[in-house]
Amino acid sequence: MSLLPKSFEVLVEALSKIAGVGPRTAERYAYFLLRSEPSKAQNISDALTDLHTSIKVCPKTFALIDATEDVSSLYNDSSRDRQVVAVVAEPFDIVALEKTNNFKGTYHVLGGLISPIDGIDPEHLRTKELVDRVKDDSVTEVILATNASIEGETTALYIQRLLKDLPVKITRLARGLPIGVDLEYADQITLTRALEGRQEF
Amino acid sequence: MSLLPKSFEVLVEALSKIAGVGPRTAERYAYFLLRSEPSKAQNISDALTDLHTSIKVCPKTFALIDATEDVSSLYNDSSRDRQVVAVVAEPFDIVALEKTNNFKGTYHVLGGLISPIDGIDPEHLRTKELVDRVKDDSVTEVILATNASIEGETTALYIQRLLKDLPVKITRLARGLPIGVDLEYADQITLTRALEGRQEF
Repeated sequence: MSLLPKSFEVLVEALSKIAGVGPRTAERYAYFLLRSEPSKAQNISDALTDLHTSIKVCPKTFALIDATEDVSSLYNDSSRDRQVVAVVAEPFDIVALEKTNNFKGTYHVLGGLISPIDGIDPEHLRTKELVDRVKDDSVTEVILATNASIEGETTALYIQRLLKDLPVKITRLARGLPIGVDLEYADQITLTRALEGRQEF
Repeated sequence: MSLLPKSFEVLVEALSKIAGVGPRTAERYAYFLLRSEPSKAQNISDALTDLHTSIKVCPKTFALIDATEDVSSLYNDSSRDRQVVAVVAEPFDIVALEKTNNFKGTYHVLGGLISPIDGIDPEHLRTKELVDRVKDDSVTEVILATNASIEGETTALYIQRLLKDLPVKITRLARGLPIGVDLEYADQITLTRALEGRQEF
């Protein structure tokens, strides 16, 4: 005898397939949706149905775009400089950089970072496509905007070597003290990088 | 200019309506589903569509049951004792108690616990229905199986007073040392309750 309705268990099973959602969390989500007005569950259901058909990856920048678009509207924007390319790991990194309102170049989404432990090798990332882009668009500067983690540094190093014979300047985001953080609480590596990268005042 | 596809943002918005899911978590879930095979998203979508139409609340025990059933199959099971009723806060508590394989009575789901801070008063719970049930089924024992929290204790106390004039024995789950826990690590309140509830050896 089943203690919970079949369709409830089907939903819990489906939800727990999401990375980071265990069976207990899935139960909590399902029960919340069951107790809420049906529109909440229906909105999620509708959005999920559309998900894969209405979104595609831009063939130039590999950002997520509407299936109706040919290339990313940011890439097509004439006010953006196609010769300056920020290389990021995931589409969300674009959102973070755009929020600064201080970048007028374009993007290239790698689709991850090199991580042998997770089985992600350079050939799993869009590195070949980056080389093609650098050539096709006569890119003058590639900004390596990867995380300040081991995977981010490894990937940056890999790309730097990959592009070293091409006539392109390669830069990366500065490492240093984050704004608002006390020097005494900064970790050793951050402080070392901040010293190494010190700038004339 | 939107940086993420419209349908992606619609999904993130819909997912973040679930209690405990913030915008960043919703983005993570949506992105995971987008990168997974479409069947994962479709399974969740289908299960959500069925959710409210295929599940109802048992009019006797207030457990969750299939919409095709009249009352909970557990309540209808002739091997279960309808005169012994375990009062629980939520439907999942039934699953927890059933896993012990040591309870042969039936259940009554309150639908929450008294919590003035969250605006949950006794009238929001199925307390009146419990009184009716005790009378209708000539219940001989009500086991208060609520959490060992302030809300659980408050609710237990409330129900005890509510039923005190009826010819029914009222018991509650024992408080004491959980199995496998060292005495020296048990908190004071648990230990106090374990002392108060000590049993002859």
